[in-house]
Formats: sequence, C-alpha cells, structure tokens
Amino acid sequence: MSRRLLALGLLLALPAAAEEGMWTYDAFPRDAVEKAYGFAPSQAWLDHLRLSSVRLAGGCSASFVSPGGLVMTNHHCIRSCIEDLSSPKNDYLAKGFLARSAKEELRCPKVEANQLVEMTDVTARLEGATQGKRGADFNTALKGEMSRIESECAQGPDVRCDVVTLFNGGRYQLYKYRRFQDVRLVFAPEFSMAAFGGDADNFNFPRYGFDAAFLRVWDAAGQPLQTEHWLPWAKQGAKEGDLVFVSGHPGGTERQRTVAELEFQRDVALPYHLLYLAEERGMLREYAASSAERWRTTRSPLRGVENGLKALRGRHQALAEPGLLADKRAAEAALREQPGVDEALTATARALDTWRPLFAAHRLKEGGDGFPSELFDLARGLVRAAEELPKPNAERLPEFTEARLPSLRQRLLRDAPIPADLERVRLTFGFNKLRETLGADDAFVRTVLGREAPEELARALVKGTKLFDVKERQRLLDGGAAAIAASKDPLVLLARRVDAPARETRKRYEDTVESVLKKNGELLARARLAALGTSGYPDATFTLRLSYGTVQGWTEPDGARVAPLTTFAGAYARQTGKEPFRLPDPWMKAQGQVPGETPLDVATTNDIIGGNSGSPLVDREGQVVGLIFDGNLHSLGGRYAYVPETHRAVGVHGEGLLLGLERVYGAERLVKELRAARR
Amino acid sequence: MSRRLLALGLLLALPAAAEEGMWTYDAFPRDAVEKAYGFAPSQAWLDHLRLSSVRLAGGCSASFVSPGGLVMTNHHCIRSCIEDLSSPKNDYLAKGFLARSAKEELRCPKVEANQLVEMTDVTARLEGATQGKRGADFNTALKGEMSRIESECAQGPDVRCDVVTLFNGGRYQLYKYRRFQDVRLVFAPEFSMAAFGGDADNFNFPRYGFDAAFLRVWDAAGQPLQTEHWLPWAKQGAKEGDLVFVSGHPGGTERQRTVAELEFQRDVALPYHLLYLAEERGMLREYAASSAERWRTTRSPLRGVENGLKALRGRHQALAEPGLLADKRAAEAALREQPGVDEALTATARALDTWRPLFAAHRLKEGGDGFPSELFDLARGLVRAAEELPKPNAERLPEFTEARLPSLRQRLLRDAPIPADLERVRLTFGFNKLRETLGADDAFVRTVLGREAPEELARALVKGTKLFDVKERQRLLDGGAAAIAASKDPLVLLARRVDAPARETRKRYEDTVESVLKKNGELLARARLAALGTSGYPDATFTLRLSYGTVQGWTEPDGARVAPLTTFAGAYARQTGKEPFRLPDPWMKAQGQVPGETPLDVATTNDIIGGNSGSPLVDREGQVVGLIFDGNLHSLGGRYAYVPETHRAVGVHGEGLLLGLERVYGAERLVKELRAARR
Repeated sequence: MSRRLLALGLLLALPAAAEEGMWTYDAFPRDAVEKAYGFAPSQAWLDHLRLSSVRLAGGCSASFVSPGGLVMTNHHCIRSCIEDLSSPKNDYLAKGFLARSAKEELRCPKVEANQLVEMTDVTARLEGATQGKRGADFNTALKGEMSRIESECAQGPDVRCDVVTLFNGGRYQLYKYRRFQDVRLVFAPEFSMAAFGGDADNFNFPRYGFDAAFLRVWDAAGQPLQTEHWLPWAKQGAKEGDLVFVSGHPGGTERQRTVAELEFQRDVALPYHLLYLAEERGMLREYAASSAERWRTTRSPLRGVENGLKALRGRHQALAEPGLLADKRAAEAALREQPGVDEALTATARALDTWRPLFAAHRLKEGGDGFPSELFDLARGLVRAAEELPKPNAERLPEFTEARLPSLRQRLLRDAPIPADLERVRLTFGFNKLRETLGADDAFVRTVLGREAPEELARALVKGTKLFDVKERQRLLDGGAAAIAASKDPLVLLARRVDAPARETRKRYEDTVESVLKKNGELLARARLAALGTSGYPDATFTLRLSYGTVQGWTEPDGARVAPLTTFAGAYARQTGKEPFRLPDPWMKAQGQVPGETPLDVATTNDIIGGNSGSPLVDREGQVVGLIFDGNLHSLGGRYAYVPETHRAVGVHGEGLLLGLERVYGAERLVKELRAARR
Repeated sequence: MSRRLLALGLLLALPAAAEEGMWTYDAFPRDAVEKAYGFAPSQAWLDHLRLSSVRLAGGCSASFVSPGGLVMTNHHCIRSCIEDLSSPKNDYLAKGFLARSAKEELRCPKVEANQLVEMTDVTARLEGATQGKRGADFNTALKGEMSRIESECAQGPDVRCDVVTLFNGGRYQLYKYRRFQDVRLVFAPEFSMAAFGGDADNFNFPRYGFDAAFLRVWDAAGQPLQTEHWLPWAKQGAKEGDLVFVSGHPGGTERQRTVAELEFQRDVALPYHLLYLAEERGMLREYAASSAERWRTTRSPLRGVENGLKALRGRHQALAEPGLLADKRAAEAALREQPGVDEALTATARALDTWRPLFAAHRLKEGGDGFPSELFDLARGLVRAAEELPKPNAERLPEFTEARLPSLRQRLLRDAPIPADLERVRLTFGFNKLRETLGADDAFVRTVLGREAPEELARALVKGTKLFDVKERQRLLDGGAAAIAASKDPLVLLARRVDAPARETRKRYEDTVESVLKKNGELLARARLAALGTSGYPDATFTLRLSYGTVQGWTEPDGARVAPLTTFAGAYARQTGKEPFRLPDPWMKAQGQVPGETPLDVATTNDIIGGNSGSPLVDREGQVVGLIFDGNLHSLGGRYAYVPETHRAVGVHGEGLLLGLERVYGAERLVKELRAARR
C-alpha cells in the first residue's frame, strides 16, 4: 500500500482502534486479535459460534444455549410476543412468564428465528445484471436479479434466502438461513425489571436491567428442536479486562455515507423523525396514563417509540457535534482524488436536493407515518398482495417476492390481539400528521379524509373493519384480486384508494433518489475498496457479524469514571418502589438470596449497534458470559463512527443472569437445562 | 463609500430588496419610499402613527382606532384574557364576546398596553459604564447602568421605561412608554373563526381567518381613555399593488447573528425546543381530547404550543436550507477583514462551545422547561421577589428592578383562574423532562423529586398549594422574606429548594456565555456600523418599527401562483362543518349578508415577524386598511433573512373586518364608533 493510500486508509475505512469493527464471519481479523490478545479463533470456533447464533426476523439477535433448542435473547426483543400472549387477566408483561413444563411453553405468533447456514458471493452476477444501467433501469435490474437469486435459493418454507448488500453495494452475498417459525416463550421477567430504570436509564450505564428472555425453537414435528450448535454457559464470569466476543446482527450503520448524506440526515431526515416520535410519545404517554387497560395495551409500543426517540436523538447529537463531520469531510476530500469519486459525490448531493422537498410526503404516504396502524398495515398488505402476487416474481415489489412469501403470510395471518382503541388514536394521529404536513388542500389528503375529521374517520374505520379477524384476512389473501375488489371493508377501501398515489411516491423516490444513491454509493464503495482492499468491515446491514472487545468502563468528558460492572446490591440501592425504579415483588422477596457483589450488568468495548440486542457475549472458549441488550449514550453516535474511548456495549452479566433465574425466579427447569449445558 | 465597503454592504446589513426592513421611527427611509412610490411620509405623519400604535406587553401589537380609547388587535393576542374571563358556563372563547355597552366591557386581568412617547439615545452612557470590562463584570456593569437609567426615567406606575438594545448592542436607546393597565374586552369573535383552519392553516395563505379583537383602554378615573392619537378607518379598502405600512413590534430577528450562532441554533437550540414542544403538543392534544372541560382549559395553551412549534420548525427549515448559511458565510468572510472581527468571531464560537453541553440544563432549571406551570412561576416570582426587592436596585435581577415592579406586581397578583388539573399534567411533564434529560442521579433532579415519581409530586403540589388564591400571593409578596421563610406551601418550598442551583446555572450562562456573546456582538455590530453606517435597520427587539410594502401575492417554488386577497365566498367554500374548518353559527346564519366578493384576508410584502401580530395595516393616508395577524410559511425564515420573492405578511382585510363586525356579529355600537372615526 502506497503512502498516499495508507494516509487514505487512516482517514477512511480502516478501523481506527483495535476494537472497532462489525466483522463478517468470512473476514474476521484473526491475526489482529491474536496480535492484541494472544488468541486466534479457529475456523471451527468461528463456524460453531456462527451456527449457534440466531437472528430474530423482527430485528434482534439471539443464540442457542442448549442442545434442546433453547434460545436466549432480550426481553425487549420479544415484548410484542409477550403482549400478544397477554390479556387483561394474564398480564405477562406486568408479572413475567415462566413455563414450568414443555407444555406450558406458549407459541409467539409473530416471531421467526433464522440460523445462517451458508454465505455465497454473488457480486459478479449482480454487477452483470446492472452493467451500464442507471436510474429506474438500474434499480429494476438490481431488484429483479436479487429476487431471482433469492427464489432459486429459497426452496420451501424452512429456508430463507436474502441477497445482502455489503460495502454499500461494493459486494453482494447470498445469505441462506434455516428458518424456524414455531418459537415458544419459556421465560420472561417482569417488564419493569427488564427495563429497570425505564426511559430514564435507557442507553445509560451504570445500569441494572435484567433484560433477558428465553425461547425455544420447536421443529415441524411439534418437538423441541435438537441442535448440535449451541453455546455452553461459562463457569467463570467475565471480569474487567477480559477478551469477549459479540456475535449478532447489528441493524445498520452509516459509517461510509457521504458528507452530503450525513448533512441530509442531520438537517432533514432526523429532525423529521424526531419530531414525529416526540409528538407520538407525548400522545401515547398521556393516552396510557388515562386508564389501566390503556396502559396495558400501550406500554409496549410506547417503549418502542421512546427507544427510537432516544436513539435518533443520540444520532442527531453525534452529527451536530462539529468534530464528526469535520473528520468525514477530511476523509471525503482524500477520497476525492480517486477517479470517478468527484462525479459520484456530485450526483449524490444532487439526488438529495431532489429528495429534500419530497421526503416528508414519502414518509407519510408510503413510509407508514400517515397510517401508523397495524390494521392499515394488514389492509395495505392484502391489497398489494392481490396485485403483486399474480405478477412474475422479478417484477414484484421486493416484499412480495417468492422468497419473502413465508414472512408475508406470517405477518398477514398472525393470530395476535390488536387493541382497537389504540388503533383509533394512532390512526387519528397519522391522519392529523398527513393533513398538517401536506396541507388541507392536498389531493392525497383529500383522498384519505374526504370531508371527514381525522378522529371521526379513524373511529369509523376501526369500528367498521373486519380485519381484526384472522379468518377474514385469510379469506382476502386466498381470494386475491377478486376478493379485494369485492370487499366493502372500510380499511381495505382506504388502502385501495391511496395505493396508486402512494406507489407513485415510492416509484419517484426509487427512480430519482434511491437508485442514484445506490449506484453512486457502489461507485464510492468500489473506489474505497480499490484504495484499501476489503481489509475493513462493511457497514452493518442486519447481517451476522462478530465483534471483539474487552470488559471495560470509561471516563466521561467531565472526568467521571464509570466502572464496567454493576451489582445486585446496586440494584437494591437504586430501587425507589416507584416506576421506573421499582423492583418487582420477586426481587424484593429474594433480597439477600443472591450475594450483593454478584455482577448484574456489564459494559464492554465491543462495536455494536441496534439489532445486536439479544447477542450472546462469549469468552475465548466460546462460552456465554453475558447477554447484550443495549449500548451507552456514546454508542448511539456509533451509527456514524466508533469512538473507542467512550463507545460501550451493555449487557446482562452471565453470572447474575443465571443466579437471578435460579434464586429470584425459581426457574428450576430452565436453570437445570442451562447448567447441564455448562462446561 | 468605497467599493469594498459597498460590496460588504451588499453582503451585510443593507436591505437587499426595496421592501426589506423593520425600521425604527427615527430612521425611516423616507427618501427610498418616495423614490419607489412617490410618497414621502412627513414627520407629523410618522409621529401620529407612532403615537397611535400600541404595544401589548405580553408580546403583541395593537393600535388606537377611535378617540374613545378603542384598541384593535388580534384575537390570538388576547386569547388568554378571553380565557381568564371565561367559565364553563360562559365560554367566550367558544362563543365569542360582545360588549353591548361600556358597562359590559370586562377587564382583562393580565393585559398591559404601552404607548411609545419618547426615544432617547443612551449609547454613550452605557459604553462608558462597560468600558474595559469583560465577562461577568461587563454584564454586571451593563445591567446595573441599564436599570439605573430605567429607574431614573420611570416615575410612577403610568410610565414604563426600557433601555432597548439596537444593532446587537451597537446602539442603546431609552424607550419611554405611557403605561395603561386597565384594559377591557369589547369584542372577540369565536376562537374557531379567529383561528379558522386551525394549526393546519396557521402560517399558510390563502387564509380565511377573522383574527381580530377590540379592547378599550380605561383611564385611572375609571373612564374610557380620551386620546388624540388614533387611526381612522379607510373608506377604500387596499387593492393589489397598493402601498401599505405596518406599524408594530416585531419580537425578534437574528439577521446579524454570526454563522456559529446560527449553526448553534440549527444544531442545538432549535432541535431542543422543537422536541420539547412536539412532545408537549402530543401530550396536550390527547389530554384535551379526553373531556369537554379539559378541552376548554387546554385549547389556548395548546394553540400557543402549536404556533410555537410551527414557527420554530419554519426557522429550522430556513437554517437547514444550504443556501441561507452559505450567504451568511460569505457575508461573514467579507466582514472578517475589518479590525477585531476575527477575534470577536472566535470568541463567540468558543462561548458557544462552552454553552453547548449546558444548554438543556439551563432551559430546564432556569428557563422554565422543567417547571412549565403558572403556579410554579408564581412561586418562583414570590420567592425571588422576597430576596431581590430588599437589594439596591442596580444589583437586582433585571426582572425585579424598580422599573419593572408594576409588571411584576401585575403578574404575581393577577386575578385569573388557574386550571388545577392542567397544572398537574404540565408539571408532571416538566418533571419528567428534568429527570430524562439530566438523569435520575443528577443532584438537581434529586432536589426536585426526592424519591417521588413526577406525577405524584405534581399531584401533591397542586393539591397542597394555596397560590391559586390572590390574597395568599398578596400576603407573601407584602410579607417579604419573613413570610416566604415561614410559608409551608409546597410550591413555595419547592421554589426555594431549587433556587440556589437554578440561579447558579443562570449565573454561569450569563458570565460565560451571554456576556461574551453580547460583548462580541457589540464589537461586530460596531464593525458593521463602521463599514456601513446606520443606513440599515437594527434586528427586531420587540420595539416599535415601521415597515412598508405592497399588497401582493407570490409564486410558489413549484410555479403555483398565490393571489393576495381571499374573499368571504372562499371562506364559505372551505367550510366543512368540522373543526378546524367549521364556520361558527353566526357566520352560517349570515351567509349572503356580506357580498361574496368582499375581501376577507390579505397578503402583503411587509417585512414582519412574530410580535407584529395585531399591527394595523395603513395606507398612505395613515388610515386602517387591515390588521396583521400572521405571515406565510416562507416568512418564518425571516428570522434570519428577508426573501422578497416569497416573504408575505398576512392580515384581515379592513373592508371584510368592518362588514363582518356589522353583518355577521351585529356589533352595532362598535361599528358605529369605527364608522364615526372613518374619514
């Protein structure tokens, strides 16, 4: 590597710090780890950890932790399952859940688990398909070839195949997953313990959350899955300074984005999303406060909104920090010397200028913000399925291709309660946002509202629809276009009414913005790869990654030192008896049962981000020493850059987790299974 | 002026367009107006218009429109008065108000009106006092001298004296006002008509609002004020292209701010405020929707929150537009050649870096965001009055100086209902914001909450306080430090508990940020004045200004043409029967009484901003042709720059206003008074 390229490397993709990097399993920097820690994971070690890792299709990570199909993840990753299984009488979110026998394990209606069994490079095939194309043609060719590849691979409902984009399109791979759709709940603590400290402590550390849950994968024969790949529980817990690995699915980073793209995020996209979420939060909190039943149905979506709000706020703050963009500008200036880069940057900036005035309309009409409702999602899904499924596979919207059919069916036919009154207020909120943002005279707004007020329309829709009923949805899905055309369901009628203009907005985005950003993103990615090779790691894309780091605290900008471990005693000291700092009854009763110095939560330097939730934290033996459930506030800027001094992953400590299960929850069957698996 | 200075002028303070400028009365560009329109206002014309102009101390503009003390302003400027006078039985906000005799005119508890009678330059005196000082010393000297000047001037409760800062401290003037504190309500339309189109139409045009109200100033003898300065109603309404003037009190512009200050607004201050307001809006809307009584007490503060949210959003969008900051950067680069400018810019940027991590804490602890409550305001006001009033005048916090005592007393002793339940939810909101933003372990948060949950503390405070009662407040105010020390009122105790740390935050801000920004702002202002003279206009500071312009529509970026006048027929066409597009009953009954083609609202090119609400729109005869109540969306960016192509002021048209009063509202006595005053 020439000196110029080396300088470029320092500015660009090469990890700046030893622990930076969300590595794909086929390019893990074994040498670097060996050099730094005297331990080089073998290929068998890597394969076993990969196959023990589980992806929850909803957006989380997990792992097999017993040969009997037991899966460990976070409580917050399966909160919607717990809610789906709850009723006013059996409020498992409030009181927790424990299956004392296999029979008591309850199936999660919406949870799908995936195990990554194969990775194949398909870059050449996709480059061939898109060669010389641009704009809409580029997009169509790319999507068409992707869905062809996926369909060829996905034979049967037990296989899921995704073409994944790495290095911003510099490389494409086909990821083949084994798909599990019968996933049952084994254990969940109380919501107030999983999220101890609530929104106030979210993304903070020191932390005292017990954000763990256990599921079990059942096979097609209705038996617990037998698996040879699973992670044993470590006998020794992780201590400060220990080398640890996180295997999971970071959802998305934007560390390779152009300065123009980051400025667009800072000035347009993030402010839009933040304002939407902030108002939604205010609305939902007040709504939830008005009755116990409303609180029960709202707390989970509310928690999602609050989590998103805080995460995006952290991102905005990172971008608003002058230093970050200054570094990016310097890196971009260095890259600009490469051939084609200047043109690609200009094209990207121009596409964003086009996008700027269309952004909100796209979010509202097509992106879901105008219709923030499960029922509307179902209606739109059914309406579009009727139109898309008869088309040749390569011409469909990506979410309706053959490879995605199992997920689609699961989404449309899930048997979970939909709280009607909450649907009403959320639809009202969305309709108001539509009218406010696009204006009362806007044609789309008139198509939605006619002369109705938002709240009246929402009330009428929720009252009139039959989409609460799975059988009705099954009928509409099976009946296809004819059934949809004949339906008088008011939500189906609304979804039909808005479909053409919503698709038009989407097409405009895809043809004039997305395709340009993608094509030029690829060009820039190739320029980077040409300069640096694949010695870096690709931006996160909810694909399996391995990161390494150490158990370590940090020093705050004001000089305060934060230690890497918290203890059970700390949790009891923090408890106030009132939400969100209320320890649930089992914890109060068990006080003293777990030694106070037992570690409860842990901070590590691993490079993680949202999507890594539920990832196992393992030691060099590949044994479980913790369960990632969060990052600290500083880690939110990790979307754009890893800052080794302050970026920390946050997990439940393996020791505290096991002792808590045993002595606080009396989860004997579960603990026995985990202990049996202990090495 | 040299060529370089001329170029600088083009980049800097000189109005870029004929109609740009919020001119002080002593520097109105008569020559420019004469050159452009063939009309030069005489000194007598200017004096009369100035003395006919009224400032509502709460933050609005108004004007005398009859010799009997009749005052015209906007409905939204006195909404809180209407609300104060309302009860569940007599909901004047819903049904409007009309006094059919002088006796029926009801006194507004919180409204103070001012008439600007004298302006004196005091720059030299203040420069003398601050010479050679910096940091806290600079601030103390400046504030001390200001309050000395004000006290010397303000003799008695009928006089108000403010030292006003012009040209960012390049010039100081003493503004002497005649103060009127007995202001009574004469007429108000229904809230739904004043704000027809609601938040959706707010800051939009075409517009159909009837946002007008009439007050009357009563003198100390309990009689309607007799005044020789008042504006007659024009017989001929304003037509497209007509020259028109707006005399009023634009609240604040930041057109002279440095790039660093604008970036701070874009990245830190505005996002903070926007998120606070968005969440508050969501909360208040849901709260208000839950019962009719809650709606009644909430709609007015809600409207304020929504208005602020939309206005700040417009500002943020203007700053996020790359062009605006690019222009400002170029202007700043040009100014940088002036001596001392580079150092001043550097010092400003450094102060903002200090400020960045302290901003939210200051807003929450001292700026009111942690305690968004009328009751807390009263408690803090009483606690601080007890501490400040015994001090020598020059050492007090500015809001407790002798010159401000009448306003302070009016604020603390106003006799208006305080809705307890709304106080409870707003306090809860503020406490939650405190804990979320500063963290559960923060010392200030613990001082506020102890181990209480926000909602419980808020409930207990509202339940336990006696500050609803004016007599109790009078007792505490009269009793001074001893009464405060003896008080067991929980809100007084809270205000005392947090006072030291809140003051500390304020002091830190004032000493390390405000004083630096002020001092260097002055240096920059002087550099600008040295280069350009006072041929420009100073940034708006809620002081009386005169702007000129024409009745004119505009062309939207997408090519759509917007006409400058809307009509009564248009209002009826827009009506849907449902809020916010519901015409009230009197309008439905009177349909056809006012000819459909009668102008209702009007757009003009006048350079206005928030605070101009309620300003009279007058023709070259100085006669009323309209009533400013808003600007279009583009005008929101006017905070930072005037864009002649799209910036428009929005008003009720004089013709429509008079006919509406007469034929829709049957306001005979009022119309007779206005017609008698017609020339």
